[in-house]
Amino acid sequence: MQAPPSPQQRPAAYAPTGRTVPTRSPQRASYDKELVHAILDEGYVGHLGFVRDGAPVVLPTLYGRVGEVLYVHGSTGSRPLRAAGASEEGLPVCLTVTQVDGLVLARSAFHHSINYRSVVVHGTAYDVTDPDEKRRALDALVDHVVPGRAADSRPADKKELAATAVIRLDLDEVSAKLRTGGVNDEPEDLSLPHWAGVLPVRTTYGTPEPDPGLAPGTGIPGYLTAL
Amino acid sequence: MQAPPSPQQRPAAYAPTGRTVPTRSPQRASYDKELVHAILDEGYVGHLGFVRDGAPVVLPTLYGRVGEVLYVHGSTGSRPLRAAGASEEGLPVCLTVTQVDGLVLARSAFHHSINYRSVVVHGTAYDVTDPDEKRRALDALVDHVVPGRAADSRPADKKELAATAVIRLDLDEVSAKLRTGGVNDEPEDLSLPHWAGVLPVRTTYGTPEPDPGLAPGTGIPGYLTAL
Repeated sequence: MQAPPSPQQRPAAYAPTGRTVPTRSPQRASYDKELVHAILDEGYVGHLGFVRDGAPVVLPTLYGRVGEVLYVHGSTGSRPLRAAGASEEGLPVCLTVTQVDGLVLARSAFHHSINYRSVVVHGTAYDVTDPDEKRRALDALVDHVVPGRAADSRPADKKELAATAVIRLDLDEVSAKLRTGGVNDEPEDLSLPHWAGVLPVRTTYGTPEPDPGLAPGTGIPGYLTAL
Repeated sequence: MQAPPSPQQRPAAYAPTGRTVPTRSPQRASYDKELVHAILDEGYVGHLGFVRDGAPVVLPTLYGRVGEVLYVHGSTGSRPLRAAGASEEGLPVCLTVTQVDGLVLARSAFHHSINYRSVVVHGTAYDVTDPDEKRRALDALVDHVVPGRAADSRPADKKELAATAVIRLDLDEVSAKLRTGGVNDEPEDLSLPHWAGVLPVRTTYGTPEPDPGLAPGTGIPGYLTAL
């Protein structure tokens, strides 16, 4: 007799769909939840696509993650957030997050590439109306950019909460796509005199620049130097 | 009597349109061509949005710029490139490029932000069929990522050219959006004990990793160390 499924046995991958199986390089696609979460958690700027008057619009946006839900926030006056809140059917969106890891220089122009990890989320964005979920979402957004920061800042007051729209997008129809590794040149090109290899690309942080009006004795917090 | 406009007097800005004037923070928007070009030239990964079966799709893509034209390339089998080539009317797209410059930590959660520069291009993507334009576009794509590299690699041969689709997107309906500077906290929050300021974010390159099969005596080229 089998034991009932425990939380540890829940599916570890998103189910592929017609639009998450790529037509090209399917071997680079992954539906692994841990991998998807890791890519989403490393980044904090996504590109949100939606349709307005029949045409696509793509805007950069911050996002946060709580389990299998992504949150995006913005002014209640911003177009996509207004559109998501305007109807109970929500707003069809696509949120894409991309990390660049390296430039791949092949001997042939054709085989130039980049090493990257990206996540594409298809779904419907819904306005978050529950005040508690909204507060948790805003904390997640702040902590997504700087882990630990939400607890070390003044939370939004009623007026600020009212001026902020939050939309939720469930992680359901999701895929990751990756390129890793070195150069894939044609065998007959290997003797060409062109340098080939990978140039690693990294995102780094500079020295924190304190606001000139800091209260006396306010040092740089540990969660910031930890970045 | 006025002299006729010389090439130096051509408009230095894109004309704003209904969809390039933001509903929020219009003071952060710019239509200056030099600024738009500088943001586009600093980046090389854009997020291309298009509509498929009525829903938005956003995919990361490399791009190149030649004057007032952006080029995107990909396999002839990729969905957006196939869609752009399938009809003479082209494919309505939105290409967005974002550079992150800093994390802005305010005393209040509400005023957290990021410093960034982004460009949003609305338009129609057309399949490039002229072989000479296609070759120039591919050179521009390689040189956009690593300036000087196109001349130091084997150009695409006929078979590779045939397998590569290139689409063009004119820079016409374009806007930049920027946030720069420090923290904008409410006056009553200035005495709070939370650290506030800006954490600069930079993209850096690591040490080039040569392909193990390099032809003997192939050193790291100057255009690479210059990055």
